[in-house]
Amino acid sequence: MDAGNFSDEISSKRVVTIGDVTLGDGSVMVIAGPCSVENREQILSAAEIVKANGAQMLRGGAFKPRTSPYSFQGLGAEGLKYLAEAGQKYGLITVTEIMDVQDLPILVDLADVLQVGTRNMFNYALLKMLGKTDKPILLKRGFMATIEEWLLAAEYILMGGNERVLLCERGIRTFEKYTRNTLDISAIPIVAKMKGFPVIVDPSHATGRSDIIIPLCRAAIAAGCDGLMIEVHPNPQKAKSDGMQSLNYEQFNRAMAAINRAIQFMREENACE
Amino acid sequence: MDAGNFSDEISSKRVVTIGDVTLGDGSVMVIAGPCSVENREQILSAAEIVKANGAQMLRGGAFKPRTSPYSFQGLGAEGLKYLAEAGQKYGLITVTEIMDVQDLPILVDLADVLQVGTRNMFNYALLKMLGKTDKPILLKRGFMATIEEWLLAAEYILMGGNERVLLCERGIRTFEKYTRNTLDISAIPIVAKMKGFPVIVDPSHATGRSDIIIPLCRAAIAAGCDGLMIEVHPNPQKAKSDGMQSLNYEQFNRAMAAINRAIQFMREENACE
Amino acid sequence: MDAGNFSDEISSKRVVTIGDVTLGDGSVMVIAGPCSVENREQILSAAEIVKANGAQMLRGGAFKPRTSPYSFQGLGAEGLKYLAEAGQKYGLITVTEIMDVQDLPILVDLADVLQVGTRNMFNYALLKMLGKTDKPILLKRGFMATIEEWLLAAEYILMGGNERVLLCERGIRTFEKYTRNTLDISAIPIVAKMKGFPVIVDPSHATGRSDIIIPLCRAAIAAGCDGLMIEVHPNPQKAKSDGMQSLNYEQFNRAMAAINRAIQFMREENACE
Amino acid sequence: MDAGNFSDEISSKRVVTIGDVTLGDGSVMVIAGPCSVENREQILSAAEIVKANGAQMLRGGAFKPRTSPYSFQGLGAEGLKYLAEAGQKYGLITVTEIMDVQDLPILVDLADVLQVGTRNMFNYALLKMLGKTDKPILLKRGFMATIEEWLLAAEYILMGGNERVLLCERGIRTFEKYTRNTLDISAIPIVAKMKGFPVIVDPSHATGRSDIIIPLCRAAIAAGCDGLMIEVHPNPQKAKSDGMQSLNYEQFNRAMAAINRAIQFMREENACE
Repeated sequence: MDAGNFSDEISSKRVVTIGDVTLGDGSVMVIAGPCSVENREQILSAAEIVKANGAQMLRGGAFKPRTSPYSFQGLGAEGLKYLAEAGQKYGLITVTEIMDVQDLPILVDLADVLQVGTRNMFNYALLKMLGKTDKPILLKRGFMATIEEWLLAAEYILMGGNERVLLCERGIRTFEKYTRNTLDISAIPIVAKMKGFPVIVDPSHATGRSDIIIPLCRAAIAAGCDGLMIEVHPNPQKAKSDGMQSLNYEQFNRAMAAINRAIQFMREENACE
Repeated sequence: MDAGNFSDEISSKRVVTIGDVTLGDGSVMVIAGPCSVENREQILSAAEIVKANGAQMLRGGAFKPRTSPYSFQGLGAEGLKYLAEAGQKYGLITVTEIMDVQDLPILVDLADVLQVGTRNMFNYALLKMLGKTDKPILLKRGFMATIEEWLLAAEYILMGGNERVLLCERGIRTFEKYTRNTLDISAIPIVAKMKGFPVIVDPSHATGRSDIIIPLCRAAIAAGCDGLMIEVHPNPQKAKSDGMQSLNYEQFNRAMAAINRAIQFMREENACE
Repeated sequence: MDAGNFSDEISSKRVVTIGDVTLGDGSVMVIAGPCSVENREQILSAAEIVKANGAQMLRGGAFKPRTSPYSFQGLGAEGLKYLAEAGQKYGLITVTEIMDVQDLPILVDLADVLQVGTRNMFNYALLKMLGKTDKPILLKRGFMATIEEWLLAAEYILMGGNERVLLCERGIRTFEKYTRNTLDISAIPIVAKMKGFPVIVDPSHATGRSDIIIPLCRAAIAAGCDGLMIEVHPNPQKAKSDGMQSLNYEQFNRAMAAINRAIQFMREENACE
Repeated sequence: MDAGNFSDEISSKRVVTIGDVTLGDGSVMVIAGPCSVENREQILSAAEIVKANGAQMLRGGAFKPRTSPYSFQGLGAEGLKYLAEAGQKYGLITVTEIMDVQDLPILVDLADVLQVGTRNMFNYALLKMLGKTDKPILLKRGFMATIEEWLLAAEYILMGGNERVLLCERGIRTFEKYTRNTLDISAIPIVAKMKGFPVIVDPSHATGRSDIIIPLCRAAIAAGCDGLMIEVHPNPQKAKSDGMQSLNYEQFNRAMAAINRAIQFMREENACE
């Protein structure tokens, strides 16, 4: 343990505003949607459910980083248009991944929040470029990045003048096999304490298991996260990617109810501290 | 991820009774105390605070497994007597570690719950022996054991006829350096679902940091644990072992208040499910 | 990286003598045999081949630490007798694992070298007991142990007065899936440099793959190991444990030829340094 | 262990030709040079030594991926020019890292082999772009990548039509602290067997320790690698990056002598198989 890096002084929280959503003020928001935009109907359907259940942002991948070049790579620009349409129709802020600096113009045009995926957290050329945009950046933790490396990656974005950085804990690679990754729940209070960035938790990628999403969402809120990112799909069994970890609509509805009760509990906790 | 091992059917919870404490019935209990029994005054003082704050069990190491043979190895039988005295005086169930089968007689005599430490989870000779006792066993997860290996280690105890097994998640070894280990929060719902053992969470060893104990206790409760194990010491700076991760009395008092509010929240959650 | 622990001064090599075999003098010896003693014929057959190919020691497990209590646990005392018979008949030093301090008398009686398995490296009660015997100890590295922890475990044996300690690198647990563990080849020169213990390398457990044993044996010798430990079985497909990683007799014969050429190469290397 | 991915049939080795150097034909080549090009004199001096000791390629970073944006980021285009000058003067093939697709034109112009660093192995946009160039690519293994993910990353390059791919094993991230990373020696025979790509081993980054480079080079050759990549610096104590792991000239001279003897040994081994 590298105790030398701890600071007793608590950073003040960085407050980030995106449209009508504020992060870092003690509230908890929810990003939900499918792993990939698969077609127009799918993302419109998901958006409707996401909105109806009170989430604030809609996720959906158009450019997909896949381990194998032979897997489905996303719909690209077409998917982005469907995502934008769904976001507009239902009044949801859209979040989607950028993999290639060459896609920046279209992404700036059509998406609200740009996500740096776990595989690109160490892609400093991309981070530097994003630091010069005025888009909020959701920076996922590299699945084998220490918290220190993650915070330093965020500095690459800040350095360019872009202060709207959200960090997303999505699990780290360990030897455990019952989950896809291991959610590092400690990262939530540590990041808040050290640097004050809003922290979003993605239990779907962290665990790869839809059956334990609810207790993990509750735990993330109880640990002090500023938001959650959850995969939801009209038909997880038929999803082109990440089906095993996606909630169906009924599960998502139950999850959101539990999430809202936990948010309410933490509101009272924060008040009494 | 080894999906083949998941079972859709939820195991029924195993209910374990120890004295007047019941685990596995939806309640949450607290074990607290110093890492090591250092002298009579220290453990009596700690026990008084542990009791006053509403915890049910008192921990304290008499036989200490230390990485270096040149570190403090515990007070041995003498420490055990002080622990028993403190437990009796304050009406607390005592929990202490067994490292050596040769210490079994004195431990059976003087302690209430026997703990298998993280370094001995794979010590099958010890587990088999404990399976033949009638003492409740707190089986800590090996810091590099998969959940599957941990559940199979528990089977070594069950096989001997001893059904009172509590599992304790205490963090696993990863590459992250800001915490001593990485608390595997997902293990809580997975163990409950697969095998139904009561799960105790030890945030002190998992993180090695007293400054994030409260959010982690809250998260563990929110994830569904059956108990917490917390290090508390009259003077953490002067502790002979694990000072950095121990709470002082004032911190413990604040932690117990937060824990009790979280327990109350989960009681309502369980009622509404 | 914990640079503070490096010492520029090279420890002098500890020379360990076991029967007519000397370790730590620059030579390289070979321990071979089946994972488990399965019956009298099997261990006698293996011993014949081990001897015929020029290896010095015969391995064979009688007490087996198995992750599941429902797996084959070894033949126990009976297996030990067969192993001793095979060792005597073919003039081979025998190596077998001790899991339980209660088995010490029979093991001291019937075996030449006592092995502490990877799961028991942190079992300090066992290590202390072995420190008081006059048997050479083969201390396997815990699959989750740092080199520092391994060297400190060895100190537990030395402290009791037993100086004949051999360290065995057998792979560590990582995220890589194509091998059972990851052989830490760097451990060989580091241990030699820091503490001078003879280092034995076990490529069978490190990789779990018989198909890459030859290049790994050659690499271990080239890195400066003092010995190799190799699983060989008359019929790996039918082995009761670890079949996938065991060599059959024809493969073992080819491996020993390659090993002998590499030993000869290193003899010349050492001469020219 | 994911045994299903093993194939018994040995892939034929892919032979890659770069200038007058051939890889994959059983020979072993050496890439050497400083971590970063720091100034003209430094890289010219290093090149002279690299050439004089019989290495075939000169490494030197101009664009440096650094964990912190506040660390030295390399000389950029200027460094590239010095590297090209040094390569030409001494007849050495140059190897340098590409981090940003925008640097591709100048790199194609001035460098011979383009390296994808460990942090960019999952940067599929970069890999796709490099697949369309006619430059040989040295693809370092991500420090958090499985062999399977690494081989699939190579497919992203092959898919574009570029068949000249060299893989570089440079250590993976584990819990061990005495080395910077853990060299995965097993990866050498596995990659050769599965896909036949030439494998280069970088013991400097794998260990972070100049004091164990020689045994690790010897081990890598003995395991069957096709090349080595070694950091050498006129004055390691004053290096702007990676000083601890760089050899000075005298150490490099001794290392090259040992390497050449090991190469000769393996030539004979291959002949006798």
